Amino acid sequence: MSPAEEMFAADASAAMLGIELLEVGAGRAIVAMTVRDDMLNGHGTCHGGPIFSLADTAFAVACNSHGPITVAAAASVDFLNPAAFDDRLTATATEKFRRGRTGLYDVIVSNDAGEPIAHFRGRSHTVARSTDAST
Amino acid sequence: MSPAEEMFAADASAAMLGIELLEVGAGRAIVAMTVRDDMLNGHGTCHGGPIFSLADTAFAVACNSHGPITVAAAASVDFLNPAAFDDRLTATATEKFRRGRTGLYDVIVSNDAGEPIAHFRGRSHTVARSTDAST
Amino acid sequence: MSPAEEMFAADASAAMLGIELLEVGAGRAIVAMTVRDDMLNGHGTCHGGPIFSLADTAFAVACNSHGPITVAAAASVDFLNPAAFDDRLTATATEKFRRGRTGLYDVIVSNDAGEPIAHFRGRSHTVARSTDAST
Amino acid sequence: MSPAEEMFAADASAAMLGIELLEVGAGRAIVAMTVRDDMLNGHGTCHGGPIFSLADTAFAVACNSHGPITVAAAASVDFLNPAAFDDRLTATATEKFRRGRTGLYDVIVSNDAGEPIAHFRGRSHTVARSTDAST
Repeated sequence: MSPAEEMFAADASAAMLGIELLEVGAGRAIVAMTVRDDMLNGHGTCHGGPIFSLADTAFAVACNSHGPITVAAAASVDFLNPAAFDDRLTATATEKFRRGRTGLYDVIVSNDAGEPIAHFRGRSHTVARSTDAST
Repeated sequence: MSPAEEMFAADASAAMLGIELLEVGAGRAIVAMTVRDDMLNGHGTCHGGPIFSLADTAFAVACNSHGPITVAAAASVDFLNPAAFDDRLTATATEKFRRGRTGLYDVIVSNDAGEPIAHFRGRSHTVARSTDAST
Repeated sequence: MSPAEEMFAADASAAMLGIELLEVGAGRAIVAMTVRDDMLNGHGTCHGGPIFSLADTAFAVACNSHGPITVAAAASVDFLNPAAFDDRLTATATEKFRRGRTGLYDVIVSNDAGEPIAHFRGRSHTVARSTDAST
Repeated sequence: MSPAEEMFAADASAAMLGIELLEVGAGRAIVAMTVRDDMLNGHGTCHGGPIFSLADTAFAVACNSHGPITVAAAASVDFLNPAAFDDRLTATATEKFRRGRTGLYDVIVSNDAGEPIAHFRGRSHTVARSTDAST
């Protein structure tokens, strides 16, 4: 297992939500989750929290794919369509920028019909400095 | 129970995370959660997802405190300090702006030592238009 | 001239910064600007304000390309590399989502060497409701 | 002059917009600007760019008030009310968090009637490490 896969395997929060790791590569990751009834909010649709968690997990795998321990410094999310019970959601993270200790990742969460559920953008911070880091 | 309290009582996702509603008022809410071992990430600290969920729940209660059904349109979060296993986290949501269908809410997540864990900002959208809404 | 081009032609703020419209299409726009000495900050690099203005202008043209009057509701920007005096900056806006009155646009600002200067994300709100708008 | 005041005095971009520094203190700043006709957009209201610039300038002064050279890493802005020609806008920046090289600042832009125009949140990065910085 790569360091990112080991990190994912040890991610109890992702396991609690039933998140599966489908793909991982240098600076990218795809994860998926099915909306359970304990993920619904008081309006009967999927709470923003599990949707954020799914996107954040894809982001975490992608930004740790290079090796050094990297954490989320900040993230933003735009909710575009509601997700419903039993929807299968996929989150695809793509690295947009990386230099020194800072990285920028875009994550798109979609449902099985290909409709966008949320667009997420995460800023990462590498805690253990890599040898070529300059910031 | 007020509409916001009813909505919270029906929030299965908040219940799954053990989130408690401590206070609710017009445009504001305080909720709390204790970090469980199934909320930890692969680095052994609290995953960003449950922290976001806690803040998002405070935001949801606050923005639904006025009555009409209101959902999150967008949110951003800055992670400031890690949260550890068994930390008691409190999220305090405050309304900063509301006009027509749009609202802006700031949420501060802190631990028991009073240290800031995250600052969250949420933009709400009222789905069921209130009678005086103009946008 | 299309409505978006007319809007750009009437944009005194863009003119003041010397912003040129290079391309416009349905949901997309490319604009450019050269960093002048009156755009530098106290550290001697380009102030974040003109970089934001450039991205915001591309966003405005793109989100008004469909006709109805549309304004920025919110925006975020990540500054990735500094821009220097006399740098030629290009901002490319792409529509990521649009439904009813809401749109989401990503804008990438680059210099002539192709290095990313900033990633911008804007959320638009259509003021004059289009006939098929439902939110 | 303090280092932040010196930085502001050398800020050609702020000068170009007629931004005045009203107050500066440890981690805080107040600046003001009057909306000119060359700040209007194609819809006849103040362009988001100068509003962002005003908020960003307050942020820059506040985050440089501690001495070491500090730059904006990221910022987000929510536009709440339009600003019109000749409106006098004030931006008040407050430090919310600072540790090591990272800071978080909230800026509120208001008009003379006390109406909120925009809420801005900036994340700063200290380039020249201060002696007690640990991240």
